[in-house]
Amino acid sequence: MTIQLAEYVSHLGLIDHHCHGVTSANLSSGQFEALATESSWRSPFGGSNFDTPFGVAVRALCAPELGLEAHCTGEQYMERRIALGPDAVNQTLLRGTGIERYVVETGVGAHMLGPKEVADAAGAEFGEIDRLEALAEDELALAENGEDFVARVVERIGASAARSLGFKSIVAYRCGLDFDPDQPTRDEVRDAADRLLRARTSEEPVRLEDPVVIRFLIWEAVRHGCPLQFHVGYGDSDIDLHRCDPSKMTEFIRRTVDTGASIMLLHCYPFQREAAFLAQVYPHVYLDTGAAVNYTGFGSHAIIRESLELAPFNKVMFSTDAYGLPELYYCGSHLWRRGVARVFGDWVADDEMSLDDAKRYLDMIAVGNAAKVYGR
Amino acid sequence: MTIQLAEYVSHLGLIDHHCHGVTSANLSSGQFEALATESSWRSPFGGSNFDTPFGVAVRALCAPELGLEAHCTGEQYMERRIALGPDAVNQTLLRGTGIERYVVETGVGAHMLGPKEVADAAGAEFGEIDRLEALAEDELALAENGEDFVARVVERIGASAARSLGFKSIVAYRCGLDFDPDQPTRDEVRDAADRLLRARTSEEPVRLEDPVVIRFLIWEAVRHGCPLQFHVGYGDSDIDLHRCDPSKMTEFIRRTVDTGASIMLLHCYPFQREAAFLAQVYPHVYLDTGAAVNYTGFGSHAIIRESLELAPFNKVMFSTDAYGLPELYYCGSHLWRRGVARVFGDWVADDEMSLDDAKRYLDMIAVGNAAKVYGR
Amino acid sequence: MTIQLAEYVSHLGLIDHHCHGVTSANLSSGQFEALATESSWRSPFGGSNFDTPFGVAVRALCAPELGLEAHCTGEQYMERRIALGPDAVNQTLLRGTGIERYVVETGVGAHMLGPKEVADAAGAEFGEIDRLEALAEDELALAENGEDFVARVVERIGASAARSLGFKSIVAYRCGLDFDPDQPTRDEVRDAADRLLRARTSEEPVRLEDPVVIRFLIWEAVRHGCPLQFHVGYGDSDIDLHRCDPSKMTEFIRRTVDTGASIMLLHCYPFQREAAFLAQVYPHVYLDTGAAVNYTGFGSHAIIRESLELAPFNKVMFSTDAYGLPELYYCGSHLWRRGVARVFGDWVADDEMSLDDAKRYLDMIAVGNAAKVYGR
Repeated sequence: MTIQLAEYVSHLGLIDHHCHGVTSANLSSGQFEALATESSWRSPFGGSNFDTPFGVAVRALCAPELGLEAHCTGEQYMERRIALGPDAVNQTLLRGTGIERYVVETGVGAHMLGPKEVADAAGAEFGEIDRLEALAEDELALAENGEDFVARVVERIGASAARSLGFKSIVAYRCGLDFDPDQPTRDEVRDAADRLLRARTSEEPVRLEDPVVIRFLIWEAVRHGCPLQFHVGYGDSDIDLHRCDPSKMTEFIRRTVDTGASIMLLHCYPFQREAAFLAQVYPHVYLDTGAAVNYTGFGSHAIIRESLELAPFNKVMFSTDAYGLPELYYCGSHLWRRGVARVFGDWVADDEMSLDDAKRYLDMIAVGNAAKVYGR
Repeated sequence: MTIQLAEYVSHLGLIDHHCHGVTSANLSSGQFEALATESSWRSPFGGSNFDTPFGVAVRALCAPELGLEAHCTGEQYMERRIALGPDAVNQTLLRGTGIERYVVETGVGAHMLGPKEVADAAGAEFGEIDRLEALAEDELALAENGEDFVARVVERIGASAARSLGFKSIVAYRCGLDFDPDQPTRDEVRDAADRLLRARTSEEPVRLEDPVVIRFLIWEAVRHGCPLQFHVGYGDSDIDLHRCDPSKMTEFIRRTVDTGASIMLLHCYPFQREAAFLAQVYPHVYLDTGAAVNYTGFGSHAIIRESLELAPFNKVMFSTDAYGLPELYYCGSHLWRRGVARVFGDWVADDEMSLDDAKRYLDMIAVGNAAKVYGR
Repeated sequence: MTIQLAEYVSHLGLIDHHCHGVTSANLSSGQFEALATESSWRSPFGGSNFDTPFGVAVRALCAPELGLEAHCTGEQYMERRIALGPDAVNQTLLRGTGIERYVVETGVGAHMLGPKEVADAAGAEFGEIDRLEALAEDELALAENGEDFVARVVERIGASAARSLGFKSIVAYRCGLDFDPDQPTRDEVRDAADRLLRARTSEEPVRLEDPVVIRFLIWEAVRHGCPLQFHVGYGDSDIDLHRCDPSKMTEFIRRTVDTGASIMLLHCYPFQREAAFLAQVYPHVYLDTGAAVNYTGFGSHAIIRESLELAPFNKVMFSTDAYGLPELYYCGSHLWRRGVARVFGDWVADDEMSLDDAKRYLDMIAVGNAAKVYGR
């Protein structure tokens, strides 16, 4: 029965409910390695990002797709990758994921292939998620004063809510998830924006870190009752990890129970248990293990297992959080398949869950839950 | 040898050192599902609590006890359950647990079967634990002023200490485990109680959240040198999970080393490692994985394994934290048996622990440790 | 291939990059048990530290080295241990570790065998690490005033940097890892030292807990660009565990990226995932699972596995954190071997990693990474 289940998992169509654009550049080794980590530095003692859990996964899983031996060296991989060129690599790897719908968050990587282009390369459908902080930074560049900023953001979020599938916030990066759960008043927001605008220079764009303005964005999105994605846990060097525990936003979650908004907790590592607790207790909370699956490589089944300890099966989602490299889509989807095949396979093999239930829950996690929450 | 061990585990008699009453009502599906989760809401997109880790465990483990196929549907389960009626279901499931002594905490579920009734249905013995905050809320309804409240509580806790096996505190829910470890002065307590009494209305009972009064209760219980159970970690929507890390009460634990009180850390998820650390380092600290085992279903062996990484084998206890549903007793005991059979079974199979040691440690965890701590 | 890998692991030479001295006393049972735990107390209900995860490991792994049956009783073990005497026991167990270089931290256990004596007993090489707080406490006993203290510490750390392999800080114990990341000014340090010196008595040595002075020590060590070890996570009853999460020192880590210093996160339990995150993102951060492996006994493979989820393979180290007992060296090394053999063995068995890569990564973790960071 576990073989039957593994077979079933390998054919599951997927909605990737949180990912980013893919680069169309023919990456050098250095450029590839810089996109294959959450770090911004190289080790002072050398070493390669092919010698990381993700690098091992690329060499094991993607190399054969590019016609190489599994476990080839990083040099061999890059040589073939450069020879094939980005279009072929993107198409081969994206089409090998089994992802049928890409829900692309467009807040970073403006120079990369966008939602439609990714979907076209993959032969799949797409949807869009707007990043609140990016949208607000756009308006901070244009607004005449705080009052104008508020009006612009209200209009922009309204238009975005009508067009996109939902919003994403990176308040975890900018303030921490222990942000004040109170909705700020219009006056507070206007004054905070005025302060930012007075400090604005023509040299570089404003980086929005003001907690009042960010809380305003979040509550404005909540007002529209759409899915609202939050970066949770693990990320790059902008993160203070202990402030990214999702249980630190519990009071905010309590106050949004009846708003119609859905709270999507992304990645969550190493707080997948805390996230699953919130998803069990609060009716509008969902989680995935996105980026964590890619960067923990063949150790990722442990994270997937923990994310499935407490969460009801209608509260878990699939995503890759892929950014830039098609390898992140490919490994993200195949590592996830291996992980759930193992977790559900163990349950079925030990007669703890029926094969039919396992298939039903996998359908929900792969597609059904996301289809319900994101609707169109 | 692992088969021998599994056999041994299946026959272990148990002391359930923390549980609650069982309902005698013939529950509807909706009522059953409401008791089968820590959530207070239903999902806006529908779904059933039979499709959660606990729901899967009920259908796998309890269904055959009620004469159904394992993995039957929730509808089939409820139909049979209603047809059998609560007395038969309670008796069947409780007698199937192997629990020989139920230590029932009576602070919630006044309308449910109490300690003696549960024990009678189960054909077992019982003991009682009094909840400090419930006892104080009773007295807040009756006290004439702060001074009177203090006198009443001192007397009530004294009487309770003479009669019951120990106390339970839900300071984790009401204040967080990062409560001030200082013992409040009598004047501080009297003033805090006076404030609560002035705010008292005839419409609804006082909900005790005042940290000064709760610290007073805890220290008053410590003064009697009895076992003192603390809710730790995972719970319902009243919880701020990050404040329920037991290491946040380290200073309180330090100050009670020599008082004769035992500190019982309950449930602990996802802080079972932190709890086991405290149990290793402090001579009067114990832990269990109670509620966490039930609500993580067939994933619970991972939590049991983590709880046994660092803790000395004389510091770990068994409980179900069952409340309302006899299924919580049944699954709580059988999931725990499966978990320890796997953890100790792996050690024995790999010749890392002798079969005799494994049996000896299991006896301690099942019965011996609780018998020592709770005494009579 | 997994057998080949296990064989390879069993012959790996090791650098133990963080350990302490070994006792030369013929320990009584009570003395042995006191060194076999992080606790300072015995259980009020009795029990033996041979009935803990570490005690089980000693009886399983060390007993045969002393000519006893595996899983013998603690009494049998102590009887043989006392009969053999400390020199024979030290030599047998140390030489059985496969450790080729002992990097000994000398801040505790002045009455024990020092680096050279340990290495001689083991037939191995050694290096030294100086504990910053111990060194400062020495100078606090001698300094005439704050100014003099500062000058003495600057000179002492300079001399130490020229002689030893690096430094260790126990700021986790004394202040918590949430220490202020700012470098204190010379005036602040002088004033803080003056305060300590005014409170100094002739009766007992100063216990350095002043955060300004400790931050000064850390930054002074950073100035020399050497490896700087931090106690992280799990320890004895001086620890407030929640303050020992290494992600709480993220800002300090950010500010030292370009200093040439390497930040070595020791033990890390239960924060091995947080530590591995820091090791992935910051180029100068490394981690091990030292003490955690010993005290979690045969459960330690789970901690090793988690430490290898996110960390690049050039950022992980081996240590035992052994103190006093040669059993801690022996179990620390053999439990680690069993753990990595299992983790890498699973990857190789599932064709997720090539055998050659696994060997290469194991060489790095066992020796290569430490050799690069500690240099000479």
